[in-house]
Amino acid sequence: MTPPRKRTSSSTSSKKPLSRSELAGLDAWFRAANYLAVGQIYLLDNPLLKRDLVADDIKPRLLGHWGTTPGLNLVYAHLNRLIRQRDVNAIFLAGPGHGGPAAVANAYLEGTYSEVYPRISEDAEGLQALFRQFSFPGGIPSHVAPETPGSIHEGGELGYVLSHAYGAAMDNPDLVVAAVVGDGEFETGPLATSWHANKFIDPTVDGAVLPILHLNGYKIANPTVPARIPREELTKLLEGYGHEVITVEGDDPADVHQQMAAALDRAHDSITAIQDAARSGKKRRGSADADRPRWPMILLVTPKGWTGPKTVDGVQVEGTWRAHQVPLAETRTNEDHRVQLQRWMESYDPAALFGEDGRLVADVKALAPAGDRRMSANPHANGGLLRKPLRIRDFREYAIEVKTPGGSVNEATRVFGSMVADIVRDNPTSFRLFGPDETESNRLGAVYEATDKVFAGKILPVDEHLERHGRVMEMLSEHTCQGWLEGYLLTGRHGLFSCYEAFIHIVDSMFNQHAKWLNTTRELEWRPPLASLNYLLTSHVWRQDHNGFTHQDPGFIDIVLNKKPEIVRAYFPPDTNTLLSTMAHCLQSEHYVNVVVAGKQPQFDWLDADQAADHCARGVGIWEWASNDDGDPDVVIASAGDIPTLEALAAVSLLRKHLPDLKIRYINVVDLMRLQDEKEHPHGLAGRDFDTLFTRDKPIIFAYHGYPWVIHRLTYRRTNHDNLHVRGYKEEGTTTTPFDMVMMNDLDRYHLVIDVIDRVPSLGSRAAQLRQDMMDARRRAKEWTRTYGEDAPEVSGWTWDGSADGEGSPSATSTSETSADFG
Amino acid sequence: MTPPRKRTSSSTSSKKPLSRSELAGLDAWFRAANYLAVGQIYLLDNPLLKRDLVADDIKPRLLGHWGTTPGLNLVYAHLNRLIRQRDVNAIFLAGPGHGGPAAVANAYLEGTYSEVYPRISEDAEGLQALFRQFSFPGGIPSHVAPETPGSIHEGGELGYVLSHAYGAAMDNPDLVVAAVVGDGEFETGPLATSWHANKFIDPTVDGAVLPILHLNGYKIANPTVPARIPREELTKLLEGYGHEVITVEGDDPADVHQQMAAALDRAHDSITAIQDAARSGKKRRGSADADRPRWPMILLVTPKGWTGPKTVDGVQVEGTWRAHQVPLAETRTNEDHRVQLQRWMESYDPAALFGEDGRLVADVKALAPAGDRRMSANPHANGGLLRKPLRIRDFREYAIEVKTPGGSVNEATRVFGSMVADIVRDNPTSFRLFGPDETESNRLGAVYEATDKVFAGKILPVDEHLERHGRVMEMLSEHTCQGWLEGYLLTGRHGLFSCYEAFIHIVDSMFNQHAKWLNTTRELEWRPPLASLNYLLTSHVWRQDHNGFTHQDPGFIDIVLNKKPEIVRAYFPPDTNTLLSTMAHCLQSEHYVNVVVAGKQPQFDWLDADQAADHCARGVGIWEWASNDDGDPDVVIASAGDIPTLEALAAVSLLRKHLPDLKIRYINVVDLMRLQDEKEHPHGLAGRDFDTLFTRDKPIIFAYHGYPWVIHRLTYRRTNHDNLHVRGYKEEGTTTTPFDMVMMNDLDRYHLVIDVIDRVPSLGSRAAQLRQDMMDARRRAKEWTRTYGEDAPEVSGWTWDGSADGEGSPSATSTSETSADFG
Repeated sequence: MTPPRKRTSSSTSSKKPLSRSELAGLDAWFRAANYLAVGQIYLLDNPLLKRDLVADDIKPRLLGHWGTTPGLNLVYAHLNRLIRQRDVNAIFLAGPGHGGPAAVANAYLEGTYSEVYPRISEDAEGLQALFRQFSFPGGIPSHVAPETPGSIHEGGELGYVLSHAYGAAMDNPDLVVAAVVGDGEFETGPLATSWHANKFIDPTVDGAVLPILHLNGYKIANPTVPARIPREELTKLLEGYGHEVITVEGDDPADVHQQMAAALDRAHDSITAIQDAARSGKKRRGSADADRPRWPMILLVTPKGWTGPKTVDGVQVEGTWRAHQVPLAETRTNEDHRVQLQRWMESYDPAALFGEDGRLVADVKALAPAGDRRMSANPHANGGLLRKPLRIRDFREYAIEVKTPGGSVNEATRVFGSMVADIVRDNPTSFRLFGPDETESNRLGAVYEATDKVFAGKILPVDEHLERHGRVMEMLSEHTCQGWLEGYLLTGRHGLFSCYEAFIHIVDSMFNQHAKWLNTTRELEWRPPLASLNYLLTSHVWRQDHNGFTHQDPGFIDIVLNKKPEIVRAYFPPDTNTLLSTMAHCLQSEHYVNVVVAGKQPQFDWLDADQAADHCARGVGIWEWASNDDGDPDVVIASAGDIPTLEALAAVSLLRKHLPDLKIRYINVVDLMRLQDEKEHPHGLAGRDFDTLFTRDKPIIFAYHGYPWVIHRLTYRRTNHDNLHVRGYKEEGTTTTPFDMVMMNDLDRYHLVIDVIDRVPSLGSRAAQLRQDMMDARRRAKEWTRTYGEDAPEVSGWTWDGSADGEGSPSATSTSETSADFG
Repeated sequence: MTPPRKRTSSSTSSKKPLSRSELAGLDAWFRAANYLAVGQIYLLDNPLLKRDLVADDIKPRLLGHWGTTPGLNLVYAHLNRLIRQRDVNAIFLAGPGHGGPAAVANAYLEGTYSEVYPRISEDAEGLQALFRQFSFPGGIPSHVAPETPGSIHEGGELGYVLSHAYGAAMDNPDLVVAAVVGDGEFETGPLATSWHANKFIDPTVDGAVLPILHLNGYKIANPTVPARIPREELTKLLEGYGHEVITVEGDDPADVHQQMAAALDRAHDSITAIQDAARSGKKRRGSADADRPRWPMILLVTPKGWTGPKTVDGVQVEGTWRAHQVPLAETRTNEDHRVQLQRWMESYDPAALFGEDGRLVADVKALAPAGDRRMSANPHANGGLLRKPLRIRDFREYAIEVKTPGGSVNEATRVFGSMVADIVRDNPTSFRLFGPDETESNRLGAVYEATDKVFAGKILPVDEHLERHGRVMEMLSEHTCQGWLEGYLLTGRHGLFSCYEAFIHIVDSMFNQHAKWLNTTRELEWRPPLASLNYLLTSHVWRQDHNGFTHQDPGFIDIVLNKKPEIVRAYFPPDTNTLLSTMAHCLQSEHYVNVVVAGKQPQFDWLDADQAADHCARGVGIWEWASNDDGDPDVVIASAGDIPTLEALAAVSLLRKHLPDLKIRYINVVDLMRLQDEKEHPHGLAGRDFDTLFTRDKPIIFAYHGYPWVIHRLTYRRTNHDNLHVRGYKEEGTTTTPFDMVMMNDLDRYHLVIDVIDRVPSLGSRAAQLRQDMMDARRRAKEWTRTYGEDAPEVSGWTWDGSADGEGSPSATSTSETSADFG
């Protein structure tokens, strides 16, 4: 790192707001937190250094990250001062979450840690237990993990601290979310764009995020980019992101304390001024000319590993990347290191901080805010405490009338949009809809009857549904949408992410991290459950024929299934009413990740409201009206997904018309997890029930929305697995028509008929002729498409006619669209 | 969008570099490209508008994106002027790649399109075919797809244009990579941080990237963020990213042409000046004080859908989001729309652009650069043409001596580092190593004996291996690393991405897109193969015990397996020599994505160089020295992955010691694809061969590195699948010790022994006792770990002793480490 400069133009350092005793108190807290952090990284015993350190006092494996820790401690100590002096309601997010020792140390100093974990008591024994448990088998993780009171952000994977912070601030008008951004994390893509989240905050109803960019200069083995560009360039960048930049810089704690106190005062003054102006009746709502606030942020420049060993074995450590993890690595075996460790810890003067009994001395203890104002005890950082059930009406209020299966056509997501509108109305401060510029494209536009999209930038007369305040959050960053939603859920609210199916892979890794968070917190009784993270994946693989190959990927489900069964759910509602029923269920559920895949294009209605409710409750079931098996089928045809269901039912009708003696059972799967063994997933069907449905020995032709092996993976232990034949997406795609897409992947009705004929023995010559007809039909459909650029009328005009005599004539329910329908 | 301002301070608009005829020529090209774009979106017939448009002239499905297209055409036309006037070697990357009509139109105007696709000839018939094929079944995609000559960037998924561009520019000192950034794409995370890629370019050996931020103001249904912040704020942001900003703004083509010509002249002057200064002998190499260049960029502000319909049905379209796709959506059925389309196309004056025969008129045609200087024909945009084989020495030069299996210990990646160093030496301008700050952590540090890390920011004396020039690219952005590597490969070079296993999920979606590119280009004969995209995933799930749960995810393989078998390969070398052999193979391979998973921690050597070469060539094989089955096993124990192999062999030795009559076959799998059926993957073993190895009826206990169902997915059609029992990662993890990690997931040696006992019938009382002993051993190991914080000596000290009598005594080959070994 460039050697710290003492003063910069935007620094507040000329002010010295701290009295001598305030300064002493802050520094005591800072030292205590540093001491506890070092103790956690190193010590098994001798927590108060009552004797010289010996080898057995030291952990055999030294794990943890010192480098970022003192910076986090500094920020925490000063936020506490602000909280106490101004009664601020604040939470703390550590972007460099690997600095876990800091978060644990401060929660312990505040007393919260011992309240949550009584074993870690506020005495010498508790201190020793605190040290020992850190990054120790059976103990706690080295990061700011779910186990850490006050944490909603682990920071194990970098990049999401600002989006989490902004999600937490939404609809919490009194909350200040302090978010430390590491200068390594600063280089990640998701973090880089999440600075722009400040254009989606409404100071009248939202709280404030206070970003604190901590420039300690180094990553694991490299300097950081923002530390090695001219400071003026960095300031331009941060101002370009829309912030007022307040700089704190130095390596002398006393000086930095004064600067930091002044910086936080100034930042909080700015926040208050922005909010007061916005809330003072001078409504900015709809005012296109109102100035967007320039929210304050702090640029904090201190050395990496500050106050730690300056050099080790003759090499500089403090202020370099070498301070990233454990500065003294051989403390157990190398006596010089051990002596240096002891001197380092003694430099914090523990005797002045902790009494003989190991208790924090009273005047330092008094610096902690009271009760829930402690950031480690703030209920906003334990959202399950605050969460209220989502208010949601019976989905039947929005259900469409279905007189006969396949007798009408609807756009499922468009109908669902009305339900979202009412959810918005009924939960005006605790539900938001997130998506990357796709709400309208995904046909959820009815939500705009109830609310608007939030935007704090300039609004022009040409804009539609764009306002300072609203419930719809759209930014062309799946990362930011996901981070917002996670932050919103983690602080006890509800939400929905609607996204193109292919591009949800952009947040695979964020999903992984959130699922791990949910998995861990399931075991923590003091963290009540959160609302589920709900995905509505529409514009899915089978209707990305117009956007082509790059937009076709149904593999997010595969990622989801890798996580613990207790956490993940996947649904494939085949029509409008089943989508409504499924979403109503998911939105009210707790502590899951629900993935719902449903198309936005016009499609047949199969089930009325009651049938949909019943079918979704069961998750999988025989559709009797489509079956003619009388309890003893020759073949089972199953499907999961709206397009696979269309093709499967069309295949059923072809077979019933042309091979009327063939006994077909049609099974629809809404809840994919029903396929799994009951021992493997809580939703799994019992083996006997599965066998009753899918038979023990009859061929099963399964038309699946995604990659076909998912179905094998879920069912490989089932009795009849050897007879299961799955059709799905096999990476065949281009820009073409909807039916050509399914044909390219052999998921089309004609091929499904061929699959049945090939797998049911001795169907005779009529079947052989039908097989030939199907091959001809495929060829004709392909030729039509190549000639006319749209699906053949016998495909797009097909209807299920109830008497199951197969191919209807082209009807008014054609699903062909003009381009205006495509997103 | 804010109404365009005619002048800004940074505008070059006071200069009018174009003569009247130059201006006329540029505008003619611009109009011709626009005309061809509109024709592609709309027309089936009547390409020259020789009669009034009728319904049948119009495509039944109107697909494509008009909004961004005129901006791309403007940039392309002007780049051509620059290329001709200054003989610039340039390629063109369209971030808004959905503007495919523009790229196709310009390639057609340049003649390249007809050269590559003779059917699309330069006459009326060819014009009609050009129009018809666009976004038409059997035709071409609507994006700037692999099918488009001159493209290395599809832009179907947004965010990667700058990282691709910088990758293309590396080691191409004469190349100018013009990269249009859409203002929607601007909001994505990967794009937001990729601006910082300008700090990793060395003007002495690299070419230049010219970013052109195209502010047309709107996304699908929203304004863009950069268009709705004050222009001064945006300029600060771009200058904060380190650029000199040249603004071009307007909606009058004649004016914009003058501005754009001046802007490109100025930008190219700046690029030349930077490069000349750097290359003029005044070496900046190692000079910490040298100023980092401020590379130029262009901010281009023109209306969305510029020159298209201003209003449609009384609603504004040009300059709004409504111009995003097809401005006149009902052209086939609505005569008003059709008339408006005709007027729109006629506004480009096609009769002045194309002759009676449909050929481009000579003086417009003359504006195209010659031969390979045409951006659509530039070989850099068809990297397979330029690619030379990687120079790589026999891996045996780096192989370690292995006298007896398990008799020595090495860190596989550390040894591989020496091989990378020589690859760097032998391919000084065509190989780079990419990674997010992890090269040292992943123990590839030997590469620094041959080269350095590239950094153009400030370099301080404390920095190590950091230089202006080098072969190692480190930025804490997996997105940028991946994008760089893709750009580097797509332009004909070689590379390797080394990454923590868990966080490679960050680029799942980028992998998907690259795999789709490789898949499509396999079918395009005019695009010769590229070098494979190679991942070395180390710091893997089983050795992230110290970093904990968030760092444990082996699911990237699952994502990879979803892509076409012709494209993807996955390898799990179990020791040092097999890693060397595998990497040598992968680095020389063509047109695959190779995923290699290998640990960086000390681990036993099993195979000497010749054995490794043989084993890797076969991909899967029996290790005779570990087996005692004499061709007729009672049980098969198999493994894939270094830690699973360690545990599997430890289990084998326990079984052989305690149940010496049990006949065990041990199989090691390096090439995961060998498990798949030969009909499903080119590497797949024939059924008979698989049965010979794995038997048709004996229990198989398979210890696998990742999620266990991957093995089931690959083998579910194998004869003996019902007897296959897989152990792998099941999302059980925390911060603990290495052996506790494998125990948590039941992958440990003791549990594998239990698995064997439970599955081999009638082993008798001795087995029952052994089973109990194994349960006791697990309990003891757990207790030891919880007590001492490290693995028990009987675990960490275990060695394979050759006579297979099981548990050796603790030896000097302990794999316990101090924290300095962890990354």
